Amino acid sequence: MIDDISIRYLETFQNRALTNPIMIGGLPGIGQVGKLVAEYMIHMLGAEKIGEIHSIYLPPQVILEEDGVARLPRNELYLYQAGDRHILFLVGDFQSTSNEGHYLMTDAYLDIAAELGVKRIYTLGGFGVGHLVNEPRVLGAVNRAELRAEIEEAGVTFNRDEPGGGIIGAAGLLLGLGGIRGIDAICLMGETSGYIVDPMSAASVLSVLSRLIAVPVDPAQLNDRAAEMERVVQGLLEGEKMQRDEELSYIG
Amino acid sequence: MIDDISIRYLETFQNRALTNPIMIGGLPGIGQVGKLVAEYMIHMLGAEKIGEIHSIYLPPQVILEEDGVARLPRNELYLYQAGDRHILFLVGDFQSTSNEGHYLMTDAYLDIAAELGVKRIYTLGGFGVGHLVNEPRVLGAVNRAELRAEIEEAGVTFNRDEPGGGIIGAAGLLLGLGGIRGIDAICLMGETSGYIVDPMSAASVLSVLSRLIAVPVDPAQLNDRAAEMERVVQGLLEGEKMQRDEELSYIG
Amino acid sequence: MIDDISIRYLETFQNRALTNPIMIGGLPGIGQVGKLVAEYMIHMLGAEKIGEIHSIYLPPQVILEEDGVARLPRNELYLYQAGDRHILFLVGDFQSTSNEGHYLMTDAYLDIAAELGVKRIYTLGGFGVGHLVNEPRVLGAVNRAELRAEIEEAGVTFNRDEPGGGIIGAAGLLLGLGGIRGIDAICLMGETSGYIVDPMSAASVLSVLSRLIAVPVDPAQLNDRAAEMERVVQGLLEGEKMQRDEELSYIG
Amino acid sequence: MIDDISIRYLETFQNRALTNPIMIGGLPGIGQVGKLVAEYMIHMLGAEKIGEIHSIYLPPQVILEEDGVARLPRNELYLYQAGDRHILFLVGDFQSTSNEGHYLMTDAYLDIAAELGVKRIYTLGGFGVGHLVNEPRVLGAVNRAELRAEIEEAGVTFNRDEPGGGIIGAAGLLLGLGGIRGIDAICLMGETSGYIVDPMSAASVLSVLSRLIAVPVDPAQLNDRAAEMERVVQGLLEGEKMQRDEELSYIG
Repeated sequence: MIDDISIRYLETFQNRALTNPIMIGGLPGIGQVGKLVAEYMIHMLGAEKIGEIHSIYLPPQVILEEDGVARLPRNELYLYQAGDRHILFLVGDFQSTSNEGHYLMTDAYLDIAAELGVKRIYTLGGFGVGHLVNEPRVLGAVNRAELRAEIEEAGVTFNRDEPGGGIIGAAGLLLGLGGIRGIDAICLMGETSGYIVDPMSAASVLSVLSRLIAVPVDPAQLNDRAAEMERVVQGLLEGEKMQRDEELSYIG
Repeated sequence: MIDDISIRYLETFQNRALTNPIMIGGLPGIGQVGKLVAEYMIHMLGAEKIGEIHSIYLPPQVILEEDGVARLPRNELYLYQAGDRHILFLVGDFQSTSNEGHYLMTDAYLDIAAELGVKRIYTLGGFGVGHLVNEPRVLGAVNRAELRAEIEEAGVTFNRDEPGGGIIGAAGLLLGLGGIRGIDAICLMGETSGYIVDPMSAASVLSVLSRLIAVPVDPAQLNDRAAEMERVVQGLLEGEKMQRDEELSYIG
Repeated sequence: MIDDISIRYLETFQNRALTNPIMIGGLPGIGQVGKLVAEYMIHMLGAEKIGEIHSIYLPPQVILEEDGVARLPRNELYLYQAGDRHILFLVGDFQSTSNEGHYLMTDAYLDIAAELGVKRIYTLGGFGVGHLVNEPRVLGAVNRAELRAEIEEAGVTFNRDEPGGGIIGAAGLLLGLGGIRGIDAICLMGETSGYIVDPMSAASVLSVLSRLIAVPVDPAQLNDRAAEMERVVQGLLEGEKMQRDEELSYIG
Repeated sequence: MIDDISIRYLETFQNRALTNPIMIGGLPGIGQVGKLVAEYMIHMLGAEKIGEIHSIYLPPQVILEEDGVARLPRNELYLYQAGDRHILFLVGDFQSTSNEGHYLMTDAYLDIAAELGVKRIYTLGGFGVGHLVNEPRVLGAVNRAELRAEIEEAGVTFNRDEPGGGIIGAAGLLLGLGGIRGIDAICLMGETSGYIVDPMSAASVLSVLSRLIAVPVDPAQLNDRAAEMERVVQGLLEGEKMQRDEELSYIG
């Protein structure tokens, strides 16, 4: 009988006695901001994959990889040793398809955190504002008031009305359920329109997070993607403007 | 493994031998009437928080508080001693997101009521009529015919066709499931348009409830909010009328 | 902890050794045909209530009765002794709100049938054709081919393409799941528009069922309701026609 | 108490020691391609029915057969001995109605595969392209990279971007969950518009599959259905064209 949620560690992951581990969660969400940041860090730091999570709460399908191999939707765990501390990354294809599944999967993530001794969790996400943003702020939330000062010093904005509707999905629940378990958790949200995958917002979050955990990550490639995306958006906007002008001159 | 529904009493809540306790349930609903009344009473009486309820049936998100701290959606229990009787308040952010969850959460509320010896439950809600109401009536329902006379004497209207569609959510199920457990329960519903948060309707319910439980609660602040809300609505209506008049004079 | 589905027999129902019992299921559905027939029979025969079924799969609300008493949505069991056989009626306010719940509740109905020794089940329903029907046929389905001849002799039409989409809900599942348990089951569906509560269709089903179980039930009151409903519909149709004629004469 | 998923083998299925069995899954899906192929093979090869699967995750209804007998929606198992190997067919009326049910039912299919010693699974489906296709390709996916070469040699196209959204339902999950259990699985998808039941696409899949498993199946009847369907579609298209031409000449 299949487990509702199954966590598998790779065989290569033998030494589970991690040093001062923190967890960074970047699952899919608004503007894919959190996913972009976490996957970029995994890529740039060369973090090592140590585990996979499958669940009946993920979409009932398979995903095709380049070699024609189909695989289940999954969340993945990556590990990186930065000096005297381990960083555990949680990334993935999807979040839960059901409300209850969000709670149950987040609880499983916290089981992992507890098992591996994680004392602090950073969750990354986007904060949709409904319009294009030139210099995206990074908004924050914490699950213990004492955490706020340190985060604000790193340039994160705290604003009760942003996001007004709360933080939905694992990025939020890791704070809420983590707090009950006594694990400190911080959510960093990059301001984003919400309309597009947003590497510029991701770059803002990366910059703040990198400072907070004192792990330098070269943002060049992410900035390149942001610049490219900006050219695309700019092109679209100019195209629209030209069309509008033409219509006006036609009327005139 | 997370519980589907978890009830936590605060450590400060040591003496659980309550005296003649009644429960007052004011969860979110139509016009937020029940929530307004119960939260106002907690505020004015200075009731003490004694517990929290979390559940996978509540929305999968966190709520941001003023200090930037994110917390799980929850229901809360407050306690107040009024002379020789205890009053237990049940309030909260949300009701269940699923049909089955409504039953299961209400069953948990009744577990609390049973554990603490509650013999009577008042549930508070709104009764949406689809138009503005100047002098909101309070409609009632009971879970045992013998309860009706006492409630009617306090000025509550009983009318089979109101509400025609029954009473949805915990305000109703506490009567239905409570009856099976042998706990008397009464629902008080303030007439309301259903379009706005309605402190005027809440004031009507408060007045009736206060009389029924013989606990005076100064309604001044609630009346102030009602007056303020009336000014806002009045302003909107006049704005609309002016616009209509202008349009007519333009046509004329 | 609440049961997902709970069956309660009344204390008055002591002698559970029924004689040759059959079950008649008339739950809500298309045109309320099945419900109308079963409730009419209970009323006319003076069947005695013997039990109630509650479930978290029914809508999460309470229903208000005339005396202001709120009660849970429920299904009910009634018993009638017709000569040397018992007739068990299954009626109710609602069917399940979820797909899985339909299966689980039907399974509970079959537990009751098995416990009480029921050897044959009649399920009653409507068959929506999308237009007004003057002389509603009664369509049939069985869960064992040998049952068909007897049913056809009573005037029931068997037609594979009617209903084309199968029989949805308990009226169908009692046949399917009943067959697996070795309980014969027959579904009788009155042709109906599907737009209105249809006592005329119910009268057709009653006539056939009454013959099949050899229990005469005076159809007079049901026919009265059907006649009344026909007058209402006729009135609506004439109103529409008059309006159309007026519009034409206005144009002309 | 009903099982969430129940597997019943027929009594005629006594000798369960199969020889080198493979499983072929053809459940309902896009263009009904997989279902058409598997049911056609069962018909042409004269495979023997050996089992049925019922589940609360299938739609809550019954299906009417020609003799007026109503039966539960189900999936079916058929067995055929082709020389020195057994072929197990999995076909059915529906797939799961819920996301979680897709996982749980696929897990049950794999329990069957494991119990009967199946070492390889072929799942059949359609690949919707949104326009009519004259010579439908067969697209493939595997759950182990080493399987690809053999499948490509049989004329199957591998293309990461097709299908871009992954493979939804049992056809995909049998690969994903099968892989975790160490069972090789291959998905063959016939290109199809997605608008109609598509025997032409099914014929393409049959041709490839027949070659892959070295079991010749006369495609004549399937080709006849394809030709007939093409005439119908052609007729519709010409009707449309004529109407368009008429409208143009009217305007002209």
